[in-house]
Amino acid sequence: MAAKYFIRNITAGLSRATVSSQNAFKRFPLITNFLLTNRQVFTACPVGIEDKHNRLVVHWKESLTDEYPLVWLRDNCQCSACFNQSSQSRTINFSQFQLNQTLRHLAISDNNVEIHWEDGHKSAYDFKWLRQRSFHQKEQQNWLKTNKELYKTWDADCFKRIPVFDFKGVMQEDNILLDWLETLGVWGVCLIKNAPHGLGQVGSLAKRVAFVRKTHYGEEFSVQAKADATNVAYTQGHLQLHTDLPYYEYKPGINLLHCHIQYNGNGGNSLLTDGFKIAEKLRENDPETYKYLVETKVTWSDIGQENGNHFHKIHHAPVICESDDGTIRRINYSQPQRDSHMVVPIDQVEKWYRALKNFYDLATDARYLIEFKLKPGEMVTFDNLRILHGRTAFGENLKGERHVQGAYLDWDEARSRIRVLKTKLLGN
Amino acid sequence: MAAKYFIRNITAGLSRATVSSQNAFKRFPLITNFLLTNRQVFTACPVGIEDKHNRLVVHWKESLTDEYPLVWLRDNCQCSACFNQSSQSRTINFSQFQLNQTLRHLAISDNNVEIHWEDGHKSAYDFKWLRQRSFHQKEQQNWLKTNKELYKTWDADCFKRIPVFDFKGVMQEDNILLDWLETLGVWGVCLIKNAPHGLGQVGSLAKRVAFVRKTHYGEEFSVQAKADATNVAYTQGHLQLHTDLPYYEYKPGINLLHCHIQYNGNGGNSLLTDGFKIAEKLRENDPETYKYLVETKVTWSDIGQENGNHFHKIHHAPVICESDDGTIRRINYSQPQRDSHMVVPIDQVEKWYRALKNFYDLATDARYLIEFKLKPGEMVTFDNLRILHGRTAFGENLKGERHVQGAYLDWDEARSRIRVLKTKLLGN
Repeated sequence: MAAKYFIRNITAGLSRATVSSQNAFKRFPLITNFLLTNRQVFTACPVGIEDKHNRLVVHWKESLTDEYPLVWLRDNCQCSACFNQSSQSRTINFSQFQLNQTLRHLAISDNNVEIHWEDGHKSAYDFKWLRQRSFHQKEQQNWLKTNKELYKTWDADCFKRIPVFDFKGVMQEDNILLDWLETLGVWGVCLIKNAPHGLGQVGSLAKRVAFVRKTHYGEEFSVQAKADATNVAYTQGHLQLHTDLPYYEYKPGINLLHCHIQYNGNGGNSLLTDGFKIAEKLRENDPETYKYLVETKVTWSDIGQENGNHFHKIHHAPVICESDDGTIRRINYSQPQRDSHMVVPIDQVEKWYRALKNFYDLATDARYLIEFKLKPGEMVTFDNLRILHGRTAFGENLKGERHVQGAYLDWDEARSRIRVLKTKLLGN
Repeated sequence: MAAKYFIRNITAGLSRATVSSQNAFKRFPLITNFLLTNRQVFTACPVGIEDKHNRLVVHWKESLTDEYPLVWLRDNCQCSACFNQSSQSRTINFSQFQLNQTLRHLAISDNNVEIHWEDGHKSAYDFKWLRQRSFHQKEQQNWLKTNKELYKTWDADCFKRIPVFDFKGVMQEDNILLDWLETLGVWGVCLIKNAPHGLGQVGSLAKRVAFVRKTHYGEEFSVQAKADATNVAYTQGHLQLHTDLPYYEYKPGINLLHCHIQYNGNGGNSLLTDGFKIAEKLRENDPETYKYLVETKVTWSDIGQENGNHFHKIHHAPVICESDDGTIRRINYSQPQRDSHMVVPIDQVEKWYRALKNFYDLATDARYLIEFKLKPGEMVTFDNLRILHGRTAFGENLKGERHVQGAYLDWDEARSRIRVLKTKLLGN
């Protein structure tokens, strides 16, 4: 099955808001909602302020009231003695901090409220700053959402609608870089076209975001057939669907794969499945399998050497990892890197294999599996905590000179870049 | 309070086992137990083998019986068609894998058992290999233990008994490198003396293990007073107890700090507390505070720039993070890097500050806090998921030329190195 993509135009000089309103809204309802949430504007204009029950109560123009605990206000005093502007850090010595704070009086101006504390200290709080830190649950949740993309799962059909980016655009335009990173956060996968010829493109892309996340395979690694392969990826065989490096407790979050040389004959096709979609489907239709895959820890391992450096990684984690709120947050799956040690009660072993087979059968089902052949200059970039990827067999006897170069990037760094870009482009 | 340390002798040519039996056993009961577990030897000599209820049943000489599910045996066939020796990986195509496996007959030799499967495939299993993969719960748990050090907490008094290592010894002798890494795993902290003069020593040490874990502060970072400090560590003020980088979801695991230049006057002393000990004490004596610190997520953040690269990191996590089995696994605490956004129901804010204060008061209590002054050439190396560290104020007006250089290392890489060294030195 060959998927079709379209390239998002490089719209140099066109603002991000304009790009979004012209193209993106219909295609990506989730991204749209996400950005709109971010753009909410409050007037932050109070009509009344009072001190009540150890809280500062602010009545806003919009008939809305916010309350702020005095202890929190004192802890977050923004004066130069309590807060270091250049490092944007609280400097109050917590050993001497008083939990019982009382205020003497308030001084209110157009933009802020100044609290005169009983001990003589004064703290000023900008109204907009206060409004953004509302303790209303809904607004706390909205703020949380702006810090992490809400993912949207895809199947084989939906995959075709995920945007494709232009390498030069991502490298040169901040709004396109932001679009690419947010698309990765929401959809978990993105193709990038028109990368220059030659090695080193994945490193350049990683550095455009932050820097490469190094592993025992190095910074930029070459996926090509080798004699005495230290990894099954370095063979010409069929590479079954997997996530990379499940044996890392700190598994690299984003995988960048650049096709440098493609195999000329049949084969060498890329395979992709959305692991979050598979997990969701199991949760819906086969809750027993889902539960088993969430509750059973698997031993993932990798033993070998790369450039003379020996490694022996082990990590115990389920195939489907949930956050404490039940959100699916990480998929671990790799047939070659599942250890022969199995820490499961013997009575559950058969059941365990059945659950794993159900998972894999669904992941390789035509409804969810995408297959396409990368051309030289094309990149597939994806969330390694989520997407299963693989490759069909190609060539023979190390003669198929297919060469893909890869590098990893961590979500910590990518999300940091998203926030910095949003502040720069959207003024958040 | 000044702590006293002793340096472990460099015992070149002396085997690790000898070192352990001469010195370490009395001092470190936990390390000792840990090593003994690893050294357990099985004869792996069967007196009878049978096929029963889809399992291979092996009766060992020691009146012990192991059972192995046939589906697991087939999945772990070690033949060259099913297992790639050079990458130490399973290559069986899981799409075609049969869950119902039946065997035709067994062929038994001195060292292994060969299974002839119904479909004609043959698989041979070495007895020792089988014995090591016993499905008895106790042995599974023993195997798990060998892959992660069991930590032992310390207070101010106990700290003095933690061994101190010699830089040259760690750099040149594999058995000392292993001792240092295991001590870090068990105690969470280690001093290293006699590092050569000059910068770059933390990088050399990290590379001796694997490689530096890079963050937005770079690979090797200098902790010294600077104008317009991007981090409160880069000032001359008192640096309150904290863990580094709590705003990273993937928080670097090991902190290496090398004293390059020490301040000549009073101040610039290092402060250390075992965060796991503090958490344990709270769990014991103040379970309500403990519960609150485990259940309430805090917003940790860092906004700024380093070498022109802007960052904005955010991570939501409790002060005390437990594993799913209730083990304490990570401490997050940093007064400057606790965000002013607080996602807690307003009714719980006061209670939250009380819990945090209880935690910090205990962490700075003389029973648990260690204070000492590093000399040039000394390093403090510690588990950043566990140990709180700080520094007393020193000098004035950027004139105190104290210079400490730091670098991070991840536990994934350090534990990998421990396993590789154990295989090399102990033949596990």
